Amino acid sequence: MKAPLIDNLQYCNFSETVFRQLRAGGVDAIHVTIAYHESFRETVLNLEQWNRWFEQFPDLIMRGTEARHVREAQESGRTAVFFGAQNPSPMEDDIGLIEILHQLGLRFMQLTYNNQSLLATGCYENEDTGLTRMGRQVVTEMNRVGLVVDMSHSGERSTLEAIEHSTRPIAITHANPHWWHAALRNKSDTVLKALTGSGGMLGFSLYPHHLAGGTGCTLEGFCEMIAEAAERYGAENLGMGSDLCQGQPDSVVTWMRVGRWSKEMDYGEGSAAAPGFPDMPNWFQDNRDWDTIRGGLRAVGLNSEEIDGIMGGNWLRFYEESFGPA
Amino acid sequence: MKAPLIDNLQYCNFSETVFRQLRAGGVDAIHVTIAYHESFRETVLNLEQWNRWFEQFPDLIMRGTEARHVREAQESGRTAVFFGAQNPSPMEDDIGLIEILHQLGLRFMQLTYNNQSLLATGCYENEDTGLTRMGRQVVTEMNRVGLVVDMSHSGERSTLEAIEHSTRPIAITHANPHWWHAALRNKSDTVLKALTGSGGMLGFSLYPHHLAGGTGCTLEGFCEMIAEAAERYGAENLGMGSDLCQGQPDSVVTWMRVGRWSKEMDYGEGSAAAPGFPDMPNWFQDNRDWDTIRGGLRAVGLNSEEIDGIMGGNWLRFYEESFGPA
Repeated sequence: MKAPLIDNLQYCNFSETVFRQLRAGGVDAIHVTIAYHESFRETVLNLEQWNRWFEQFPDLIMRGTEARHVREAQESGRTAVFFGAQNPSPMEDDIGLIEILHQLGLRFMQLTYNNQSLLATGCYENEDTGLTRMGRQVVTEMNRVGLVVDMSHSGERSTLEAIEHSTRPIAITHANPHWWHAALRNKSDTVLKALTGSGGMLGFSLYPHHLAGGTGCTLEGFCEMIAEAAERYGAENLGMGSDLCQGQPDSVVTWMRVGRWSKEMDYGEGSAAAPGFPDMPNWFQDNRDWDTIRGGLRAVGLNSEEIDGIMGGNWLRFYEESFGPA
Repeated sequence: MKAPLIDNLQYCNFSETVFRQLRAGGVDAIHVTIAYHESFRETVLNLEQWNRWFEQFPDLIMRGTEARHVREAQESGRTAVFFGAQNPSPMEDDIGLIEILHQLGLRFMQLTYNNQSLLATGCYENEDTGLTRMGRQVVTEMNRVGLVVDMSHSGERSTLEAIEHSTRPIAITHANPHWWHAALRNKSDTVLKALTGSGGMLGFSLYPHHLAGGTGCTLEGFCEMIAEAAERYGAENLGMGSDLCQGQPDSVVTWMRVGRWSKEMDYGEGSAAAPGFPDMPNWFQDNRDWDTIRGGLRAVGLNSEEIDGIMGGNWLRFYEESFGPA
């Protein structure tokens, strides 16, 4: 069977239009964010919305909870939708909610979103004290039930400690190497070596703030970075995690950045002059542009097997190893 | 394969002791109550407790969500535990929570618990106005996802309307015929005919307030009632729903009766003179006594096939037809 096409991070303003674009682009599975700062109950409201979409659009999308659902979606011409949280807020201070969230379909959870959490330190804090007492227990519980630790928005030390403490491979679902573009959210060579050396996965982000040159980043530049990463870390540990936020109003990026934790505006990777979502590169506007990236990877000399892996095969293997009980 | 032994309603003070008694008594599956008046979040806390028990006692119990889990439990010498709510309080005023609760494993939900609810009228109200506007929509949604409508604590008209409106067979998980013992909680011949005539199931209660003679009810009297019910309604629509509340402190029966809805004491089926849990009949003290009932059913002349059905086979068939999507 053909290798699947998987994008392992999206937060679009989902609608029938986006679902049809996913089909037009041949996307077999996506991992979508269902919480930034939401409490457990608010996260459940977001799951309810997804349940309604699954009921309304059964020919376009299906709920994904196991790796086999990627193949099922592929065979039936649909897109499997897997859930993740970018923050541990949905589990509140209750370790028992980890298994409950897993039973509700959550498959990825970040230990932090930029700030210090109950579990670890985010990449925007001045000091990173690593995994907390609770953080270590939470990683153990996530390992037990099959909820993947995602450190995309975490600090360096916390990330290294999560890799070390976790008995199963972890993920950085959406970020790029710091050596390519020195953004706070991009990851050091040290982190990426530790991540991939332990079987973990890196998903390449297409969010302009993570790209060398921002919105003006070229397809060639992006693909050359991937080719270099494949040499450094092994192509089999790489995938896509576009961070596509198509159609979201700017109020949503404000929610991502300040949630309810601040009364002041925090522009995060933006600025007062450019507070909203940045424009996407012209070669990746939406889910119909994945073939362009595939072409770009061919052009920089990656072979078919490497490209099939990066475009989805590697995430499928990771799903197979990660979503069940330990 | 041997017919399974299923008790379709228990609310014991669960512990390793009770789980070992379930095994000693050869009980293959139980349906347990996880909410009387609990909100959604409180119900989730109760599910978290069950998750912990499943983790702690994997050789004694397992989580039951599909009919096949009864057979899996039987083959592996464990008891499958299925979840139900005696009140719609866990879904609050949110129809989207029905599918969420189903995804968390809920398989039975009463539309009312004695009082008027958002959905229907309970058996203790003076007037029964039948299914509400929301109640009709909730029954349709429960039918869609595979959550069984349970009318054990509902009024006559509401029960008849639920049977009529539901496109799938419903259940009265724990009650007895009113013609045998005229308790408010026992069901009229009209209701039982409509229930069983539409493929629904009646689970016989062993809760003393539902028994002719109360705690002093004889095994023979109980089994003669079942034989008479088998003649009237067909043995294939009958099963057990003991309502066993073993080891619960009397504070729990107070919670069942008044929850948070009243500042006054309501003794329900009890009285100021006897406010606590009544003593169980001496022939049914706990889960090790099911063989006694099996013997009692033989003694009143039911045949092996009828007895196998009543002791669990009929609930298994009902589970097979009821727990999946419509």
